[in-house]
Amino acid sequence: MRMKIKQLKNPPADRPSPVGSDVTIKGWVRTVRNQKTFTFIEINDGSTLSNFQVVANPDLPNYERTMQELSTGVSVAIQGTVVESPGKNQSLELVAKEVKIIGPCDPETYPLQKKRHSYEFLRTIAHLRPRTNTLGAVARIRNALSFATHLFFQKKGFLYIHTPIITSSDCEGAGKMFRVSTLDPDALPRTKEGKVDYSKDFFEKPTYLTVSGQLEGEIYASALSDIYTFGPTFRAENSNTSRHLAEFWMIEPEMAFADINDDMDCAEEYLKYTVKYVLEHCEEDIDFFNQYVSPGLRERLEHIVNTPFERASYSYAVRILEKANKPFEYPVKWGSDLQSEHERFLAEEYFSKPVIITDYPKEIKSFYMRLNDDEKTVAAMDVLVPRIGEIIGGSQREDRLDYLKQRLIENNLKEEDYWWYLDLRKYGSVPHAGFGLGFERLVQFVTGIENIRDAIPFPRFPGKAEF
Amino acid sequence: MRMKIKQLKNPPADRPSPVGSDVTIKGWVRTVRNQKTFTFIEINDGSTLSNFQVVANPDLPNYERTMQELSTGVSVAIQGTVVESPGKNQSLELVAKEVKIIGPCDPETYPLQKKRHSYEFLRTIAHLRPRTNTLGAVARIRNALSFATHLFFQKKGFLYIHTPIITSSDCEGAGKMFRVSTLDPDALPRTKEGKVDYSKDFFEKPTYLTVSGQLEGEIYASALSDIYTFGPTFRAENSNTSRHLAEFWMIEPEMAFADINDDMDCAEEYLKYTVKYVLEHCEEDIDFFNQYVSPGLRERLEHIVNTPFERASYSYAVRILEKANKPFEYPVKWGSDLQSEHERFLAEEYFSKPVIITDYPKEIKSFYMRLNDDEKTVAAMDVLVPRIGEIIGGSQREDRLDYLKQRLIENNLKEEDYWWYLDLRKYGSVPHAGFGLGFERLVQFVTGIENIRDAIPFPRFPGKAEF
Repeated sequence: MRMKIKQLKNPPADRPSPVGSDVTIKGWVRTVRNQKTFTFIEINDGSTLSNFQVVANPDLPNYERTMQELSTGVSVAIQGTVVESPGKNQSLELVAKEVKIIGPCDPETYPLQKKRHSYEFLRTIAHLRPRTNTLGAVARIRNALSFATHLFFQKKGFLYIHTPIITSSDCEGAGKMFRVSTLDPDALPRTKEGKVDYSKDFFEKPTYLTVSGQLEGEIYASALSDIYTFGPTFRAENSNTSRHLAEFWMIEPEMAFADINDDMDCAEEYLKYTVKYVLEHCEEDIDFFNQYVSPGLRERLEHIVNTPFERASYSYAVRILEKANKPFEYPVKWGSDLQSEHERFLAEEYFSKPVIITDYPKEIKSFYMRLNDDEKTVAAMDVLVPRIGEIIGGSQREDRLDYLKQRLIENNLKEEDYWWYLDLRKYGSVPHAGFGLGFERLVQFVTGIENIRDAIPFPRFPGKAEF
Repeated sequence: MRMKIKQLKNPPADRPSPVGSDVTIKGWVRTVRNQKTFTFIEINDGSTLSNFQVVANPDLPNYERTMQELSTGVSVAIQGTVVESPGKNQSLELVAKEVKIIGPCDPETYPLQKKRHSYEFLRTIAHLRPRTNTLGAVARIRNALSFATHLFFQKKGFLYIHTPIITSSDCEGAGKMFRVSTLDPDALPRTKEGKVDYSKDFFEKPTYLTVSGQLEGEIYASALSDIYTFGPTFRAENSNTSRHLAEFWMIEPEMAFADINDDMDCAEEYLKYTVKYVLEHCEEDIDFFNQYVSPGLRERLEHIVNTPFERASYSYAVRILEKANKPFEYPVKWGSDLQSEHERFLAEEYFSKPVIITDYPKEIKSFYMRLNDDEKTVAAMDVLVPRIGEIIGGSQREDRLDYLKQRLIENNLKEEDYWWYLDLRKYGSVPHAGFGLGFERLVQFVTGIENIRDAIPFPRFPGKAEF
């Protein structure tokens, strides 16, 4: 019977120990160590970070030839008996009865050698990099964070909604957008005036890739109370940094009958839940990142789970920064946006814990955020965490029709482009709030991976859409 | 304390009955029925299909005025006492102590009247249609199917992988694709030869929206054994039918060390699991569709869960169809693709149950499917279900490098475009298999909804990218 290495290493409590049983493991060879009278083969099948050790004795059929053909990357099926291991790095090992080579792997040309490769190099072989310890562990943690996200919201009664990817409207008019079209760029149809004739395009008008599912999320919250999205979003900004992707996944919950305090509670609870889930379900992978990638990681994650987040208004935060007597690159004054250096100072140095900043000046925030009674600030909230800065941005939404219309005017946005969004305020409007979380930022935070391009399987950024 | 209607109707077994307790419900008015001495108000908050009945007595503060302002669509917060209901349609109701109007809703202009609206009309108000019974129920079932999908694969140890949306390669060279670009169509950069200069585009080459995540899924299966994707995919075909969308969600599992039989087992188990999950978790919504939308639905779904799927080869299916003596629109002969009418005959009439057809002629299937020993057919499998026809398409993949290269040639595809896909066969290749499921087809099947445009919140099809 085939068993995955994870099952072998962590047999369910209600199952007998596999010791003594005859099993088959299938996977890829990580290392081969020839001893005088036998061979150690380390097998990985991706179900766990650690390999399973196989002992191959010379009495195996075709021992010599088979051992010669084994090298890193070869795929194998090995049948044998599970025994207690005398070695100190593992508790169990497999004494092989049959080693079957499934797919060879020429060590002369295989790009993944046993040595450590740079992240830059691994990105050029994104089709092979999940076979490395680091990228395999990222994939497992990313999977756990995704599933924990669904578990969290489903337990709370939120409905998962798929908001559209192709859109003819742009949320906020903020980010630069990608165009989507079926027109042939070498033979564009033209109007009489010589302009591109979009009535001939697939959707009969210009369309784009969405920058956020929030506005559509509000539609469903205004009908079904609590919803969340989890889907890809896009920014066409020419940002060649370790913090930006052109294509990334966002999680956007939206709650009806909720204000900014409910929003903050939900964001804090969400982060604690998902981080705790990973600490409990990906122990080995976290240990790996803690040891080799980001020392102190486990402690930082436990701190997130166990510490109540601080909450402070933007105005208060500005006073802290003004008094900090720190040589910030960007000066701080009331009305200007907080920069990454300010955010990190607040979370890492001043509060030494995650902090939620609220009530930002309306001028630096989006039109849909609810105007506070002071008429200068809006009910926005940003969650800042050490080492990452802003990880979540959210707000209570403007639910009053007249205020929302006014904010559209102030932002030079046209009412007719937002007719359906305004309708939500016209018909049974409710106070509601939500937030957005860039999923890759969360993956970065939980793994300690420095470059966001390694937090997603196939990163898209200026000049790169490979694989 | 606020309670959702679902909590009130189905209190957890370990909690005392809510009868006698003081609670607040928040939601939208569905109907108001004025009796002589009191008023019945039906409230819906989206957590369930059914409303919660509120009894408002004249001793309420501002009774007259408040009752006058209540109409369909108004959002309210109602505080009161939960009592056993004397009515026969519900077991509990709320005797109001306070009725607070949150957002008014002008009955003169509100597009959703109490009468039944056509699906076509509702699509024009996709921002309000989730407030209807039918579209609300679709959303809840879609949510349950999504979550059941994750539960199923997570329990089996599959990792959820996000494959890219923007791509420079096209899976199969099959479907028509949408172009993605940041070039200004009114000022396209040109090469010396007068062609569009894509080196100036965001990704420095032509890019498209993905038609499938399969090839990238194979990358991760070739490293981590079992994976699945669940993300949006796109087809730019000008198909104005009730079965096609330009943007739809696909689920694509991929298993290493698996053959076509494992693939069929997984597909059958998946369908049974998700359908059972919905039968158990969305009873009320299924009852609704069973009664008003698709009579016999519940029985059909239970049949899926309880009946082993039939399995038959394509060649056998063709013989059945040839002997069927049916006036098919498309003639059947070995070598031609099965049409919807053939698929439905097989599943609905001949086998009267889901059937998996295997081993199709290689000419009508994709290049990546594994060539069988007869060298005429490939290890493909399609799952056909009554009323829908094909719901899942899958195959064992060609894992032999030389065969795959030959298939590329036969399909006029260039090796250099598939260098990384070929590498998977070059380095530690393993037998692997997977399938694709159009998620909206599953939603259609489980709800009985006729038009796929009502199975997704915001449908995209030729001429429509509204909201």
